[in-house]
Amino acid sequence: MYSNGDIFVGEVIGTAMLILFGAGVCAAVTLHHSKARAAGWVVIAFGWGMGVLAGAYTAAPLSGGHLNPAVTVGSAVAGGTEWSKVPLYVLAQMLGAGIGAVLAWALYYAQFAANAERDKAQPTLGIFSTAPEIRKPAANLVTEIIATVGLVLPLLFFGQNKGIGIGQVPGAQAGVYGSGINVLLVALLVVGIGLSLGGPTGYAINPARDLAPRVVHALLPIPNKGSSDWSYAWIPVAGPLIGAVLAGLVHNCVF
Amino acid sequence: MYSNGDIFVGEVIGTAMLILFGAGVCAAVTLHHSKARAAGWVVIAFGWGMGVLAGAYTAAPLSGGHLNPAVTVGSAVAGGTEWSKVPLYVLAQMLGAGIGAVLAWALYYAQFAANAERDKAQPTLGIFSTAPEIRKPAANLVTEIIATVGLVLPLLFFGQNKGIGIGQVPGAQAGVYGSGINVLLVALLVVGIGLSLGGPTGYAINPARDLAPRVVHALLPIPNKGSSDWSYAWIPVAGPLIGAVLAGLVHNCVF
Amino acid sequence: MYSNGDIFVGEVIGTAMLILFGAGVCAAVTLHHSKARAAGWVVIAFGWGMGVLAGAYTAAPLSGGHLNPAVTVGSAVAGGTEWSKVPLYVLAQMLGAGIGAVLAWALYYAQFAANAERDKAQPTLGIFSTAPEIRKPAANLVTEIIATVGLVLPLLFFGQNKGIGIGQVPGAQAGVYGSGINVLLVALLVVGIGLSLGGPTGYAINPARDLAPRVVHALLPIPNKGSSDWSYAWIPVAGPLIGAVLAGLVHNCVF
Amino acid sequence: MYSNGDIFVGEVIGTAMLILFGAGVCAAVTLHHSKARAAGWVVIAFGWGMGVLAGAYTAAPLSGGHLNPAVTVGSAVAGGTEWSKVPLYVLAQMLGAGIGAVLAWALYYAQFAANAERDKAQPTLGIFSTAPEIRKPAANLVTEIIATVGLVLPLLFFGQNKGIGIGQVPGAQAGVYGSGINVLLVALLVVGIGLSLGGPTGYAINPARDLAPRVVHALLPIPNKGSSDWSYAWIPVAGPLIGAVLAGLVHNCVF
Repeated sequence: MYSNGDIFVGEVIGTAMLILFGAGVCAAVTLHHSKARAAGWVVIAFGWGMGVLAGAYTAAPLSGGHLNPAVTVGSAVAGGTEWSKVPLYVLAQMLGAGIGAVLAWALYYAQFAANAERDKAQPTLGIFSTAPEIRKPAANLVTEIIATVGLVLPLLFFGQNKGIGIGQVPGAQAGVYGSGINVLLVALLVVGIGLSLGGPTGYAINPARDLAPRVVHALLPIPNKGSSDWSYAWIPVAGPLIGAVLAGLVHNCVF
Repeated sequence: MYSNGDIFVGEVIGTAMLILFGAGVCAAVTLHHSKARAAGWVVIAFGWGMGVLAGAYTAAPLSGGHLNPAVTVGSAVAGGTEWSKVPLYVLAQMLGAGIGAVLAWALYYAQFAANAERDKAQPTLGIFSTAPEIRKPAANLVTEIIATVGLVLPLLFFGQNKGIGIGQVPGAQAGVYGSGINVLLVALLVVGIGLSLGGPTGYAINPARDLAPRVVHALLPIPNKGSSDWSYAWIPVAGPLIGAVLAGLVHNCVF
Repeated sequence: MYSNGDIFVGEVIGTAMLILFGAGVCAAVTLHHSKARAAGWVVIAFGWGMGVLAGAYTAAPLSGGHLNPAVTVGSAVAGGTEWSKVPLYVLAQMLGAGIGAVLAWALYYAQFAANAERDKAQPTLGIFSTAPEIRKPAANLVTEIIATVGLVLPLLFFGQNKGIGIGQVPGAQAGVYGSGINVLLVALLVVGIGLSLGGPTGYAINPARDLAPRVVHALLPIPNKGSSDWSYAWIPVAGPLIGAVLAGLVHNCVF
Repeated sequence: MYSNGDIFVGEVIGTAMLILFGAGVCAAVTLHHSKARAAGWVVIAFGWGMGVLAGAYTAAPLSGGHLNPAVTVGSAVAGGTEWSKVPLYVLAQMLGAGIGAVLAWALYYAQFAANAERDKAQPTLGIFSTAPEIRKPAANLVTEIIATVGLVLPLLFFGQNKGIGIGQVPGAQAGVYGSGINVLLVALLVVGIGLSLGGPTGYAINPARDLAPRVVHALLPIPNKGSSDWSYAWIPVAGPLIGAVLAGLVHNCVF
């Protein structure tokens, strides 16, 4: 339904918006000399949720606003997105996430510089990527799998809501949220995932959201930036993809 | 209107989502080594409200998304749900709530383990079920009755909103919220119930939300988990059911 | 358009819902042995806003959900409500507000009792009615006038939004918010009024919201309840009514 | 599409509402003897966001509710607003923002007076206009540019959402948000900008929001009000305009 060009542009710009807001809010509450410093978990959760709103708001008319390889894969398993389009979606999401991370760094440039000049510069990876509170790979993986089911399952099921005037756009793909009300619903769903399911690992629930900013963190010339923690990097990729497949399979069993 | 199979599947999965988010947010603010620890009452209220959004979002096209025996009973009293369907709804809600509690425990597995290893492990029942701040059965029952009226009465009255393009799906059952805007309204209503009416007892307002996770708490192999407090268990069952019947009777007097 | 019986029932029950949530959230953050004690201003503002949602959700199909003499008077000045209906609306709103205050007291009964037994029982009027931080009648009156314009003007102007599919119900009264999206808009508008305009006087912006609960506070058998502060009582009545007339006149100049 | 008279009145009143709420929330958390004092960044972000809701709610049927020269310029670049109308929009926005700042000062009159009487009166400019945490013009300008792209790009892209029942009003200008759902979306988008992108400079993202209240601050008879900081004043004007042009150009490349 969407052209390849529209998918690419929509997902690049939409995912860049998502990560600009998401990495932005992590910088806002973490870095010294930010007005939102130490503003608490509710700010993190609403910042990321409104990032989904900003990104989906932007990308909805072009690509449906997946912004997340887990959403794309879940939709493909459920028959809403052609498998042949999946690599294009994922590539664009990765590229967009990287651009968003660079934009967030540029927006907080003076704060990053001031941090690097401190006696004990704060590690900065947490602004870009997730890290677990307790490092146990199996448990962390389970956390990301379940949290991603909490994202993808409602999207896929609600996409079946065909008989209803608001909600799914008639004829659109399963798993997309094209209209205004759907943009709101998915944004608030992600607020809820942050509040409820984000405690153990910081809720990647999106491989592009975690991996591309981690690459950007490794490449950007931030002095005293600390480790990019590559040993953990596979979990926020594998967990969300497994969760997405599970959600898609549950969808296929039910519908 | 909904088939028995759809009701069963919708209510099981939807209620599991609700409790995953709801027990999840209680774990998030209670347990050590959670990023949301001690994040405050506003996080609890929004976490549960967005859990309603996640659950209703999922279940709406299948069962109308009751997720709560009090909603089902209120809807039956008001003539929106056939009495013969009530046992099926309640059974599915109980089963779903139990599954959701197990999922929340799995998601916070490492945090539960770390809690059990502490010198003074924290009691864990508050993550699964409600408890009053002041234990006085009559007062606690009144609290749960009134708080449940605050949930069911708006749902039933708004279900009469027939002349309006958005809102109730024409021809649908009273008390259900099938469309996107209704999912939002009921989620924010539950946020409000948490903020305003949850102070004394922790707002069960849903027998399935309290009883099934209490059973799960009693059964799960959590070391040092503390008591399951069975002496209180009848109040969050009886109070919401009484409140639902009252709300249904008020509805029938008015319409 | 609405029958007298529907107006009366809708406004009584809707305003009772509003005050149950509103007085409830004030009790929740004020009283000892409440889970939300000291949860902060954001909880107050969202609790009252979601109280508007609960009340308008309930009353919308019956009376349009004014819940506030200032809304009714503003709508009458703007030609949306017949002046002959105004006394009925106001009477029902006062009665409903009183019932809501009693319900909130009943819901927090054990907390009120525990407060009265303390050595230094806390004054309880702030749970029922507003009080200024700095007691200067002229300034307090101006505050309430402007804050009420901030409520009534958007309602009246948005009520002119005829060419738009969502929003005003075609043929409905100016100033009412019958549909789901309008319930959300007005609820969030009141959240904003609380956050932004509530600092000096606690934002009555509604004569029924302040006066009827003040009467209930004077009558209820709460030991050690403190003064009902009648010398201030005229300001949260007069200010909102003046603000509503001003908003109605601005509306009439523009449209 | 909109008449000159409607544009003028809509933008004056709508922008006055925006700044009443926005300057209001800054007063609410800053000044002594305010019930919301020190209530935190989440209150600031939601107060400004709900100010957008109040203003757009009011202005939508008259002018489309731009409320911001950056939105108007972005819409003009994207072909949604005629360039010949831009001066009228901007003039009305400046006038409205000034009126809103005066209203906020009047509403908090007693608090401003009490502040001035303190031994060390608090500077008051932060209630009216923005200031950076780290004063580096180039970095501050980049921050305002990117944050404004985060506002204008989603508005313009979503304005292309033609095939969808909710969202853009058919035939309306690109970049306007006339209907109820769009009012909500843009309000929550601005909440997100505050939370995520406001840390370094306090997110002007709107030349009228910063410049007109700064003029009002310089003119109002507030004793001990402190400096109006004119050396910074050009950045919250230039940054948002540059960001708006960039967003418009991206829009034109894509569509």
